[in-house]
Amino acid sequence: MKRLCILGSTGSIGTNTLDLVASFPSDFEVRTLAAGRNLDLLERQVAQYDPQCVAVADEQHARELRRRIGPGTRVTHGRDGLIEAATYDGVDLVVSALVGAVGLPATYAAVQSGRDVALANKETLVVAGKQIMGEARASGSRILPVDSEHNALHQCLRGEKVEEIRRLWLTASGGPFRKHSLEALERVTPEEALRHPTWKMGPKITIDSATMMNKGLEVIEAHWLFGVGPERILVVVHPQSVVHSLVEFSDGSFKAQLGITDMRHPIQYALTWPERWETKLEPFDLVQAGPLEFEEPDLERFPCLGLAYRALEAGGAAPAVLNAANEVACQAFLERRAAFREIPAIIRSTLERHAGDPGSDLEDLVAADSAARQTAEQLLGQGVSW
Amino acid sequence: MKRLCILGSTGSIGTNTLDLVASFPSDFEVRTLAAGRNLDLLERQVAQYDPQCVAVADEQHARELRRRIGPGTRVTHGRDGLIEAATYDGVDLVVSALVGAVGLPATYAAVQSGRDVALANKETLVVAGKQIMGEARASGSRILPVDSEHNALHQCLRGEKVEEIRRLWLTASGGPFRKHSLEALERVTPEEALRHPTWKMGPKITIDSATMMNKGLEVIEAHWLFGVGPERILVVVHPQSVVHSLVEFSDGSFKAQLGITDMRHPIQYALTWPERWETKLEPFDLVQAGPLEFEEPDLERFPCLGLAYRALEAGGAAPAVLNAANEVACQAFLERRAAFREIPAIIRSTLERHAGDPGSDLEDLVAADSAARQTAEQLLGQGVSW
Repeated sequence: MKRLCILGSTGSIGTNTLDLVASFPSDFEVRTLAAGRNLDLLERQVAQYDPQCVAVADEQHARELRRRIGPGTRVTHGRDGLIEAATYDGVDLVVSALVGAVGLPATYAAVQSGRDVALANKETLVVAGKQIMGEARASGSRILPVDSEHNALHQCLRGEKVEEIRRLWLTASGGPFRKHSLEALERVTPEEALRHPTWKMGPKITIDSATMMNKGLEVIEAHWLFGVGPERILVVVHPQSVVHSLVEFSDGSFKAQLGITDMRHPIQYALTWPERWETKLEPFDLVQAGPLEFEEPDLERFPCLGLAYRALEAGGAAPAVLNAANEVACQAFLERRAAFREIPAIIRSTLERHAGDPGSDLEDLVAADSAARQTAEQLLGQGVSW
Repeated sequence: MKRLCILGSTGSIGTNTLDLVASFPSDFEVRTLAAGRNLDLLERQVAQYDPQCVAVADEQHARELRRRIGPGTRVTHGRDGLIEAATYDGVDLVVSALVGAVGLPATYAAVQSGRDVALANKETLVVAGKQIMGEARASGSRILPVDSEHNALHQCLRGEKVEEIRRLWLTASGGPFRKHSLEALERVTPEEALRHPTWKMGPKITIDSATMMNKGLEVIEAHWLFGVGPERILVVVHPQSVVHSLVEFSDGSFKAQLGITDMRHPIQYALTWPERWETKLEPFDLVQAGPLEFEEPDLERFPCLGLAYRALEAGGAAPAVLNAANEVACQAFLERRAAFREIPAIIRSTLERHAGDPGSDLEDLVAADSAARQTAEQLLGQGVSW
């Protein structure tokens, strides 16, 4: 019986995780939940899974939830509430599935306290990969990636030695605009960007897929998870999204992980690791999956990918600044305050203005994150262009 | 420093193995060699690798080789010579690369004596898989598959549990006649059959690829190597030969091994296992490898595959009979004494006539092998048809 904390229980990863828990009722217990403001869904989750503690965004939502669910469940809120849920007594495994840098403090606390973490919140490692991995080594916490690409790499690396990795190959669907010209990219709308060709995911990560910043963030995440330098982490476009990623070894051999595009697969892998449990999902059909194609990514049309490599190579606070500017620019694009091609322009300019920000500890990174958000918002008003 | 015996040193796997040994001169020592009748090449190999003992086919070739290389190297011959080479003092790893059932006694002796075996001679496991695997468990001998498909499965199974395998998927190029109609298959010549589209291999295995008996033998080999039942070993046609095989796990995840079609890769893997050594071969280019296609095999046009499943399910001596009849029929096809479509017909009829042959120990199997060869030769004269 594993006792879970689910940070981000009302989002895409959170609801898929709870579906899985429901299909293995005697193997998991939901000890704590955390979500933002979707109280209707959270109320139903509390009724179904009976957690001991629930964290929400703020005091007002906490009061409202208490009123709805009665006194049997502790309700907390804000940053401290998230940390309390993540480190609650008896929690074995924290599913970290909040969206964006807001997930960092609670994930950090979970790692520090030695709990295992099923990590879907890639921003945590993008912003503070060095610190998180250092704490994990010290506490014995194991970080199990839920992102399908890193989950694939984790599977390919079972029984292998890190020193024998030559290169990691992250596959990218290429997103909805894979074949768009530069001109066509100027005019794309949020609705078009939200129509992902192969994966069903939340809005932020779907926009990141359309800009390919998602793959950039994944390069940074892979660097910290597997200890491989940026020059040895490559991206290959694979429109069918069937091969979830590949490892190339020093002897020239490649190993790949393949499967259907359903996030319940990598979530289950992270929840049941080191075991593999019989799935109830439909089997993958290799013959039907059709010809599998692989292409080089186009850094001219998708400059966010290049910006992510640059931030990783710069080190320090640069990845945190990249991530903060990207969150602001994506939100502005979704709200029609920025064009699609402004997203990389805002990120690049924000990175330039914060080139010297220190990034040695968590406080530095939180400060760099805040400062970069302010800068990005200011740049939005100025209409910077690529 | 690993000390090697190479059984079949003048064949395709043998010469590739010696190439690899030459590229890692301080890591391997060639302690013994065995080959058939190619004395010119064997003489050069003795000069270059300085083995302590060499085995050849018969007394006459042994005398001739002694005359050529002088008294410094022991020369033996025949079945006992092969066994002596395989179990020679100091040998750590036996590369078993003789073609056909002739490789069985020496491989069996190597396994019995606790030596590790890099196994390219698939007939050994086809004929006596149960006995060989039993001896390996008893002696601690480790069997490392060199066949690219089984080598791929071995790689995919690193760090995994046998109980968590759902199915093994062996890829098949489909051979040179993948798109031939039944009528066109009636008329194919040995020259056409020897033109394999993706792999460069010896003549026997190339004919086996054209009939798809090669894949049938591999199903039997996979059964013994990995302990998975025939109903859970599947074949998928993959004309690009880039994915060398796949494992499907109980949780629905697939893992695949990919690479260039060069036998030096799986040979090196088997020679250096559990380590992976930096290769000097050209890297695999996933983008250039082109669209990867997968198709169901056609058992009507390629009935040898179905015969192999049937023999494996029948058990006992049936796989040995299948293999013996196939060796005779292939040789007859190469010598134009049989048409391409007669190969499965001869195998099926031989299997029917030996349905009751016992197969509990090695003597039984050697007897079944001899009897099946006689039967197959007789059937050849009678013109059986499918």
